[in-house]
Amino acid sequence: MKAIAYYDGTVGSPDELMVPFNDRSHFFGDGVYDASTGANGKVFLLEDHLDRFYSSAAAFDIRIPLSKDELGKLLEELLSQVEGRTQFVYWQVSRGVGQREHVYDPNMTGKLWVYIRAEEMLDPMVPLKLITLEDHRFEYGNIKTLNLLPSVRYSQIARMAGADEAVLHRNGVVTECAHSNVSILKDGVFYTHPNDEHILRGIAKTHLIQACWRESIPVIERTFTLEQLENADEIIVSSSGEFCSFANELDGKPVGGRDPHTLGKLRRAVYQEFLDYTGIDALFDR
Amino acid sequence: MKAIAYYDGTVGSPDELMVPFNDRSHFFGDGVYDASTGANGKVFLLEDHLDRFYSSAAAFDIRIPLSKDELGKLLEELLSQVEGRTQFVYWQVSRGVGQREHVYDPNMTGKLWVYIRAEEMLDPMVPLKLITLEDHRFEYGNIKTLNLLPSVRYSQIARMAGADEAVLHRNGVVTECAHSNVSILKDGVFYTHPNDEHILRGIAKTHLIQACWRESIPVIERTFTLEQLENADEIIVSSSGEFCSFANELDGKPVGGRDPHTLGKLRRAVYQEFLDYTGIDALFDR
Repeated sequence: MKAIAYYDGTVGSPDELMVPFNDRSHFFGDGVYDASTGANGKVFLLEDHLDRFYSSAAAFDIRIPLSKDELGKLLEELLSQVEGRTQFVYWQVSRGVGQREHVYDPNMTGKLWVYIRAEEMLDPMVPLKLITLEDHRFEYGNIKTLNLLPSVRYSQIARMAGADEAVLHRNGVVTECAHSNVSILKDGVFYTHPNDEHILRGIAKTHLIQACWRESIPVIERTFTLEQLENADEIIVSSSGEFCSFANELDGKPVGGRDPHTLGKLRRAVYQEFLDYTGIDALFDR
Repeated sequence: MKAIAYYDGTVGSPDELMVPFNDRSHFFGDGVYDASTGANGKVFLLEDHLDRFYSSAAAFDIRIPLSKDELGKLLEELLSQVEGRTQFVYWQVSRGVGQREHVYDPNMTGKLWVYIRAEEMLDPMVPLKLITLEDHRFEYGNIKTLNLLPSVRYSQIARMAGADEAVLHRNGVVTECAHSNVSILKDGVFYTHPNDEHILRGIAKTHLIQACWRESIPVIERTFTLEQLENADEIIVSSSGEFCSFANELDGKPVGGRDPHTLGKLRRAVYQEFLDYTGIDALFDR
């Protein structure tokens, strides 16, 4: 099948499955999530994603009803039913089901949701167009919550402007993108925002950094400004669906393209890691 | 009946009604809401609440499927089926139903949700215990969205501390509470945070201010600090379910109680407005 949905033990088509009115995700976005790319029945970097998912839930005192092992098995079992060379593998836990009020029973058990669909990965050889927007999000950016209305807004503004992603900044200091991390290469050094409360600790970004060390590319985790972004040798955008994309346009002006050699090394390293992990031969037809 | 739920044309018990897996409220908290108190078949200050609700939806480009008139009639029709002297009347619109991705079809039509339950109003003669917490919320606080995870957190921290509400502050400047506004009386003047992006323009607060003018109490809409809060003559907490409560404890220390005369005038004025609007005789048994 093309897509599958799961809610608290029930499996169905995402277009037909129904869930309870009183799930707390509806009224408060009261839940956390995680997502990765699937291929060949495997969820890429499953343990990293499960660790982050359970950490997100713990940060908001949400009880996941399964162990990491059980959840991993469930994801792979559902994934095996979905067609395609690669898949978008998404799961979330809401705090639970109960009458709408802010406070909750501390013993409430979470409800688990899974959604998997066939999805081709974006080709990292296709450059991205970016726009810049002010970051008005909350200070829980390090936790992967369902409170994503600002990200919806920024993504849509980018789309309407004919761009692929929005780079966010707080008073001129770049944080991350609407749904990915952003890093830069400058004079052979990889710069990226430190993992504080303003950005999500991207798993793709973490593996980019590991690839940098393997390739002897120095890494400095320090904030950079919009001006430094404009003048970077390369701008790298990464997420769990797009491991190492690059930008050639920022707010309509040309950017990057000055260190294709280092960019190429990094790109090969992280995509090779995906091929090795999932055991598939190729990701793109070319 | 004790409670009723509505989703996109279907009515049922809140415990039994089911909604589509793919509603965007689930994945992004992609929606806005409003709420008021019902009595005698009337939704208190219905027009104010509808105006705010449609403004919230417009701010996030969400299409409400009914006109204000139609929605008002629907709310009163559903309200008439719920028992009790007063009711909690809640409604929200999600952006719509569709496959999980940040960007959306700009022509997508919203899904309307209503939830009404019998609920006695809190007695404004019972003083509140407050705690103070840092305000880490986003800068869309003027819009009544479903991204309420921080408010859930702050409300629960207050509850676990044995308090009724949490007063939030940004670097020592008081904004509002987890789910109500906070204002102070000092030397006969009513001070309250201006309606910028850090607080919700409370309808109860707006009517408190109107009552001040009627009673010749000067109003200054200006931020105040935690220290000014501690030293206020009275601390007033207001929401659409609690029009004019007062606090006698802040972080475990006694506060307020120094201007019961002005507080009493305000309390009588706003509760009288409710009685006049709904046509009931009394709100509390005493």
